[in-house]
Amino acid sequence: MRLTVLEKCRTKTLVLPEFRLESGALLREVKVSYEAHGTLNETGTNAVLVCHALTGDAQASQWWNGVVGPKQALDTERYFVICSNVLGGCIGSTGPQSVNPETGHPYGSSFPTVTIRDMVHLQHRLLQELGVPNLHLVIGGSMGGLQAIEWAVTYPSFVRHCIPIASAQQLSALAIAYNDAMRTAITNDPAWNGGDYYDGPGPLQGFALARKIGMITYRSYELFEDRFGRETTPNAASYQIQSYLAHHGQKLVNRFDAGSYLCLLNAMDHHDIGRDRGGLQEALQRITANVLWVGIDSDRLYPSVEQRACYEALLRAGVKCEYAEIASVHGHDAFLIEAEQTSETVKRFLQRVEG
Amino acid sequence: MRLTVLEKCRTKTLVLPEFRLESGALLREVKVSYEAHGTLNETGTNAVLVCHALTGDAQASQWWNGVVGPKQALDTERYFVICSNVLGGCIGSTGPQSVNPETGHPYGSSFPTVTIRDMVHLQHRLLQELGVPNLHLVIGGSMGGLQAIEWAVTYPSFVRHCIPIASAQQLSALAIAYNDAMRTAITNDPAWNGGDYYDGPGPLQGFALARKIGMITYRSYELFEDRFGRETTPNAASYQIQSYLAHHGQKLVNRFDAGSYLCLLNAMDHHDIGRDRGGLQEALQRITANVLWVGIDSDRLYPSVEQRACYEALLRAGVKCEYAEIASVHGHDAFLIEAEQTSETVKRFLQRVEG
Repeated sequence: MRLTVLEKCRTKTLVLPEFRLESGALLREVKVSYEAHGTLNETGTNAVLVCHALTGDAQASQWWNGVVGPKQALDTERYFVICSNVLGGCIGSTGPQSVNPETGHPYGSSFPTVTIRDMVHLQHRLLQELGVPNLHLVIGGSMGGLQAIEWAVTYPSFVRHCIPIASAQQLSALAIAYNDAMRTAITNDPAWNGGDYYDGPGPLQGFALARKIGMITYRSYELFEDRFGRETTPNAASYQIQSYLAHHGQKLVNRFDAGSYLCLLNAMDHHDIGRDRGGLQEALQRITANVLWVGIDSDRLYPSVEQRACYEALLRAGVKCEYAEIASVHGHDAFLIEAEQTSETVKRFLQRVEG
Repeated sequence: MRLTVLEKCRTKTLVLPEFRLESGALLREVKVSYEAHGTLNETGTNAVLVCHALTGDAQASQWWNGVVGPKQALDTERYFVICSNVLGGCIGSTGPQSVNPETGHPYGSSFPTVTIRDMVHLQHRLLQELGVPNLHLVIGGSMGGLQAIEWAVTYPSFVRHCIPIASAQQLSALAIAYNDAMRTAITNDPAWNGGDYYDGPGPLQGFALARKIGMITYRSYELFEDRFGRETTPNAASYQIQSYLAHHGQKLVNRFDAGSYLCLLNAMDHHDIGRDRGGLQEALQRITANVLWVGIDSDRLYPSVEQRACYEALLRAGVKCEYAEIASVHGHDAFLIEAEQTSETVKRFLQRVEG
């Protein structure tokens, strides 16, 4: 099989000649953007895969500074830490904005449905190409957590430890509801044009609104109250919280693709590790990894009541597992913002399981 | 002063020749749609004012069936129960969709800014016209609660008892954030046309999305999970939760006006009983009514932590007050859905204060 590895700043790109999706669709010339830090040891037992969240990318050492790096929980002096931009993404990996080699035009609306399982299978291919024989740990928050637990079910013998954070074994109705609102925000924009907008600026207004909705779900009542309260902008034209949401909307529009965003929302909606496996309980029973399920007490999107239920489902399935909860005012994004607490939680778990 | 009372089914309409707003703007031929049930006693001491929520109307006996009616907490055999559609509304009272008598066209973008205080002042005018000398009770949930507490501050000597439910003394940053997302959903729609769309169907798509966002905030994780989970529509094209949100979006579009919705969102954002009164604490000290502040344990929009803080602020201001919490899986809308529990809570309070 032809394999090309392109250097691109610190990020590398693997190009696979073809990749078959769960839907049956075949993608050609699939790019996988990734970063690897540290060195794979001779026995190949020190690999760690970091899975990123919805708008994340392969640069885990950047966006998870404090968790990934020398002397951090994911110590790049001890572990070989890999992170890749997901399939369907837009920061180096193949997604809806990529040029379809068969047409010479961006895929747009013709980009096939991608699942969390597809992402995991592609990551598995990447690891094979990198000569990684198994994973000491797979870890991720939010959409990254969906991938982490999917990994433990799809490739049980490949994964020794698994840490999903603020995520789910199957997406909840509440999370599907928010995704639906965000999706509608984008598709309501006339510039969306069914997903075929890559010859123009695209659905900028709708996408910015989607991000506004997202940002609200990623934060907590308390945080917004402490940080903004009823403070107005200097000209008193609006409230600071409105300015903050507008800023984040614009910021994402400038760095992310709306089509990719929708592609990933769809993948999240359909995330269900029990699908085609006889249900959740049977799927969980496939897991042989040690699992640390992590919740966040102020999470409005993947609430702690759900996180504890996920842990209890693992227990019932006989999985070796633990539960930890990040105490934070930051809501869902605490796994990114409370890097020190997250790092400590991960570190303590690894110390226990590594003996 | 000229006063016209029009019969309109069970709902009546008061028309005031003019009404001055907090902003200084003067509205002419202002309609106030209202219903009254029961009889005002000779001493005028049995009047109850019910204030409705964002998309409510004057028909409290309909939308608050189980709370308003014979033998209910707001017993129409004992009390004279009045409810009016708010200023800025679209179900009988003057709002952006009303014809401006000076131009012969709907107000649209020229409709002035309305505040919760304006709503309260107009309700006060209505009560004067009805010969109501004071209120035994003013009560309301959500936007109705904003009016209820505003009443107790604006007209302290007029109000003996006050029950705000799942509401606020000043809108929180979180609530402003959700309102901002809903507002953007409407104004992003090209058919919004700056608010001047009454010659066409208007921003139907954007308004339906706003309602989707609203519905999510009015419900709880647990309710969505219990009721919908990951159930799909019969053709498996989408999840039931998506169908539910789309249904509610469409339903509101069919019965409500987007311009009125925005007008009311703005009024809520600016709700702050401390504004121009030396702040919250000083405003609260004006209250002479007995207050029962009611929260809902699963409320995601006006969370119970905020409700308890509102109660504590009342205590600090020396207001005679109590706090009660509705235990429900239904989230913010529990004050409508858990009518029996709400009725019992109100009934017990009234029994205590009435001696």
